[in-house]
Amino acid sequence: MDIETLRARHPDHWMRAAAIRTLALDAVAAANSGHSGMPMGMADVATVLFEKHLKFDPKAPRWPDRDRFILSAGHGSMLIYALLHLTGYEDVTLDEIKNFRQWGAITAGHPEYGHVAGVETTTGPLGQGIANSVGFAMAEAHLRARWGAKVQDHYTWVIAGDGCLMEGVSQEAIGIAGKHKLNRLIVMWDDNGITIDGKVSLSDATDQKARFAASGWNVLACDGHDPEAIDAAMVAAKKSDRPTLIACKTHIALGHAAQDTSKGHGALTDKAQLEAAKAGYGWNHGPFEIPANIKAEWEAMGARGAAAHADWQARVAGLSAAKQAELRRIFTDEAPAKLPAAIRAVKKAAVEAPAKLATRSASEKVLAAVNPIMPETFGGSADLTGSNNTKTADLGAFNQETPAGRYMYWGIREHGMASAMNGMALHGGVRPYSGTFMAFTDYARPAMRLSALMGLPVVYVMTHDSIGLGEDGPTHQPVEHLAISRATPNTLVLRPADLVEVAECWEIAFSQKSTPSVMALSRQNLAAVRKTHTNTNLSAKGAYVLAEATGKRQVILMATGSEVEIALKAREMLEAQGIGTRVVSMPSMELFAQQDEAYRKKVLPAGPVRVAIEAGVRLGWDRWLLGERGRDTKADFVGMSSFGASAPYDRLYKEFGITAEAAVEKAKALL
Amino acid sequence: MDIETLRARHPDHWMRAAAIRTLALDAVAAANSGHSGMPMGMADVATVLFEKHLKFDPKAPRWPDRDRFILSAGHGSMLIYALLHLTGYEDVTLDEIKNFRQWGAITAGHPEYGHVAGVETTTGPLGQGIANSVGFAMAEAHLRARWGAKVQDHYTWVIAGDGCLMEGVSQEAIGIAGKHKLNRLIVMWDDNGITIDGKVSLSDATDQKARFAASGWNVLACDGHDPEAIDAAMVAAKKSDRPTLIACKTHIALGHAAQDTSKGHGALTDKAQLEAAKAGYGWNHGPFEIPANIKAEWEAMGARGAAAHADWQARVAGLSAAKQAELRRIFTDEAPAKLPAAIRAVKKAAVEAPAKLATRSASEKVLAAVNPIMPETFGGSADLTGSNNTKTADLGAFNQETPAGRYMYWGIREHGMASAMNGMALHGGVRPYSGTFMAFTDYARPAMRLSALMGLPVVYVMTHDSIGLGEDGPTHQPVEHLAISRATPNTLVLRPADLVEVAECWEIAFSQKSTPSVMALSRQNLAAVRKTHTNTNLSAKGAYVLAEATGKRQVILMATGSEVEIALKAREMLEAQGIGTRVVSMPSMELFAQQDEAYRKKVLPAGPVRVAIEAGVRLGWDRWLLGERGRDTKADFVGMSSFGASAPYDRLYKEFGITAEAAVEKAKALL
Repeated sequence: MDIETLRARHPDHWMRAAAIRTLALDAVAAANSGHSGMPMGMADVATVLFEKHLKFDPKAPRWPDRDRFILSAGHGSMLIYALLHLTGYEDVTLDEIKNFRQWGAITAGHPEYGHVAGVETTTGPLGQGIANSVGFAMAEAHLRARWGAKVQDHYTWVIAGDGCLMEGVSQEAIGIAGKHKLNRLIVMWDDNGITIDGKVSLSDATDQKARFAASGWNVLACDGHDPEAIDAAMVAAKKSDRPTLIACKTHIALGHAAQDTSKGHGALTDKAQLEAAKAGYGWNHGPFEIPANIKAEWEAMGARGAAAHADWQARVAGLSAAKQAELRRIFTDEAPAKLPAAIRAVKKAAVEAPAKLATRSASEKVLAAVNPIMPETFGGSADLTGSNNTKTADLGAFNQETPAGRYMYWGIREHGMASAMNGMALHGGVRPYSGTFMAFTDYARPAMRLSALMGLPVVYVMTHDSIGLGEDGPTHQPVEHLAISRATPNTLVLRPADLVEVAECWEIAFSQKSTPSVMALSRQNLAAVRKTHTNTNLSAKGAYVLAEATGKRQVILMATGSEVEIALKAREMLEAQGIGTRVVSMPSMELFAQQDEAYRKKVLPAGPVRVAIEAGVRLGWDRWLLGERGRDTKADFVGMSSFGASAPYDRLYKEFGITAEAAVEKAKALL
Repeated sequence: MDIETLRARHPDHWMRAAAIRTLALDAVAAANSGHSGMPMGMADVATVLFEKHLKFDPKAPRWPDRDRFILSAGHGSMLIYALLHLTGYEDVTLDEIKNFRQWGAITAGHPEYGHVAGVETTTGPLGQGIANSVGFAMAEAHLRARWGAKVQDHYTWVIAGDGCLMEGVSQEAIGIAGKHKLNRLIVMWDDNGITIDGKVSLSDATDQKARFAASGWNVLACDGHDPEAIDAAMVAAKKSDRPTLIACKTHIALGHAAQDTSKGHGALTDKAQLEAAKAGYGWNHGPFEIPANIKAEWEAMGARGAAAHADWQARVAGLSAAKQAELRRIFTDEAPAKLPAAIRAVKKAAVEAPAKLATRSASEKVLAAVNPIMPETFGGSADLTGSNNTKTADLGAFNQETPAGRYMYWGIREHGMASAMNGMALHGGVRPYSGTFMAFTDYARPAMRLSALMGLPVVYVMTHDSIGLGEDGPTHQPVEHLAISRATPNTLVLRPADLVEVAECWEIAFSQKSTPSVMALSRQNLAAVRKTHTNTNLSAKGAYVLAEATGKRQVILMATGSEVEIALKAREMLEAQGIGTRVVSMPSMELFAQQDEAYRKKVLPAGPVRVAIEAGVRLGWDRWLLGERGRDTKADFVGMSSFGASAPYDRLYKEFGITAEAAVEKAKALL
């Protein structure tokens, strides 16, 4: 079908969609950078969605019961900026669109969560949006079950491209959504047959519709340029008892010389071709110019949601004051006022009855105390529930029959799990934490980075955090993974040493509002190192003096997690030789770095030699060993410089030289 | 069907398979650790495979035309150890099996490539084996096309579990195999319906057979305990024109009290239950005891391949001496003798006509010179061919029609690409390199770690290696990714500064035999920094003096890649102020660390203050800034401490303070 026919068939719709297409063309041309073709291809689908289906209110973009719109194909960012501008999101001014991809503009190259109201998640790394959306739909189903449809009753709409569907994480997401019949999840696939390298058929022959059907999805198809067909598919999708894929047959860069080619994917900046495309659309307006009547039609779509929003507000106003406050609390990630007392109680009990305990087991004890007073927590594991110790008695499994359940059996899907946790946190009203083995940080990395970039307070429960896991061997033994998370901006790495520190670290993690936490926990049992109770959360300062030198302080030993008990043993040996030795427990480098210089110098004064002990690589330690500008002192490190091996863990510690004896020797060599 | 019936129906087969089951039970019980249930469930399938189909010769386990057997469900490692022991692989003695999972044993908890002949790849991280196998099958198809079926003509057999199929990477692998009709790839799915957390139905409702069919696979099914049905499926699979999935319906921990339960997944160590299982098998022998007649039957299977091996040797002996030498060369990862001269020619030409050039473009130039003289190279990109600059004119696309093509359009599948590259390298005869954006290291991480752990000389071409990529914004801008790769043991990170260094770095990468390389390349154009020609590969020492101080050396500036030109500019500014400044280019920290102390001290003498400049995080730099034991000097760092932003790249460098001015200021503050 040619442009003429499309225009003639639905002239009003056509011009509304043309507003998107021309804004995308103009913004990309102005930036001389970006992706024109996707917004041009999906303009019709997006127009019908915003006009007829999406429940949204540009005046209240954070309203908890709005529909969520996820642009998984994030490179087509001008699609969402155009939609938000046209429907009246006040931040997205025409100036912002003219400054697309420029320093200081909120209209970043890819949609960035937090820059623009209406951008529900950061996308660009392909497959993330569709996997986030599973978390959005889970959160909606869960909260609907707990709060009732009066409070939560909405859809999650996703636009995904071929790239999203080729990324493996999409399969994990599809599997989760299909299993749990997340029927409020509707994915519109931009089926344009084109990728950057050429036709999709160059690299893939998958029947996507059959693939989604195989995982239990409702599968529909439509001509992605026919507004009636699009609408009919959306109407049908909303009625399904399963998640829906709508395969929207589209033309990338519709109406441009680059239509249906991989060139159409990128920045279409040729002036003459741009003008020709606009002329073909019947669009006789200057760059960035939207005629008032068309803008008014779009703003009317934006105004449509005000009534639904007002209804929702009225319904919520009917809740008790306590319930309203609770709703506000969970949607603003406020920890409950009771949390500190619950943590203190765990700490007190721990000190009163010290026991050898793996920190993963300690973690379960803390969660058992916290989950009952934090109904917004939502736990899970990537098929390692018994190993990650993430399930407490009161949670109950989340599934279609019991959507109020607070525990997810994610299956063997670390990446999908992490990405869905992001979606849950973005949705709001739930505080997700889930576990896997720390070595499988690698599988979850793309989503963990986005947790940090978006500032989402999710918690990654990473157990089996060193060679201490023993016999499973080097594939399962993290060596570089503490360094990986520490290298990532805005990520809290917490590696507690015993039950007391575990309790403190959970308090820290569950008090975050804009930072994800990586909780590194041991498989093996560890001795209790905190012998006296203190109400203060010592871990909150990142590092603190656990044991002071008797006599002249000549050595400072630093350690985290399972190696703190080794440091204490080394201290005893050094002290026995008359060498005054302080032990610093450092559960979080990031938190320690945030302390003022006076505190940092108090914990790590210049002078004594320093040895750090951690069953991982050295990267990240030098700052604390040597001081940021150098010359603080002499220092050394006891840890790993290779991959691990398969054997019982105590043998591994000995063979890899992570022992009190090694620490003593290195310290003495520096004196 | 009960055990009695199974035994009665195929008594001889039954006892052969029982040898596997009892070895697995005994070894796991002795180790008090491991996974018994999978070997017990898949023993029948494996027995039929080794007895009737697998082309292998235990006396020549590295024979290039053997069939490859991949245990993707690597936790079932006792299955492969039992098979190798029984069929006569001499390394896998009964003592090794008795020492399963112990220090120094080759029988690691998960199968480790390089420990045991017959273990074709390291598995355990789920989904990797099946994705490796795509690379194996590609290499076979490619080499068959290039060398003829007389030289390469074999199958790749895979055992995969539900975990492998749930991991997203499996979808990427399935898609690649289906598209390219890799019909020598046969996957036996251990369809036992059980994962660690419980039934598969707890977390997944995918119709796996329909899913594979959707990607163009031949799909078969059989009773995984009926040797005739298994054999029939394997016969049919070998005749298919497409890759085949055989869904093998099995019982995990067959015949044990834990059969068909998630408990059966792990270590079955209860003595009475173990004895009961053996009794049920009709196995009246002591622990680790294999009756001579049964061992003889297994050894006969092992002997079967000798004839095929001898035939192959005879066929290869018929090749010209040059061809035979070439075959040996490519299967031992020897770089061709011509490589250094080709590299020198590129370097010479570069110095004679210096030009501003992105290092990714420089890389393409080098590849254009090298690919014609290294027919074993095999390039590719995850749908960023034009951006990664990995395709040179002579390669040709690999696909079913042109399997001799040396370039793969991987699609948007970084993880599957990396894992398949591992498979290609493991297969031998090809030297794979492929590209994506460096930020998407995250997607490829699980496979990149395995490249390092296995010691595979693959090359990751990671372009757009900093905020220098500009407008695409923080999702696409690596910040922590150099640190991530540097934190990983046995990984060469190469970040060249201009065409000369790029040529040197490719020589280094293509000369590796047991280390993967990460080639970090810029999107943006860079000035040439190497102005005089030298035959020596200066980058091979990891770091070298690029520009010496005039007068007293007060400052040493260190930089890599795109920041070397900033360091040179800062040097000019400092020298203009009378501050003698050396510039050290450091394309590889790992190579520099391998130099002797004398060289390291020559390049970085104690005394002058040091400033490092790199558009990434500081982690990893302190060792060179401060000296390993500290106190070398005072130092500072110019780089990133947050995620990036969306804007033109020169603006970003200015806004994030990665400038010559900043380096000058920091250096002067230390003096």
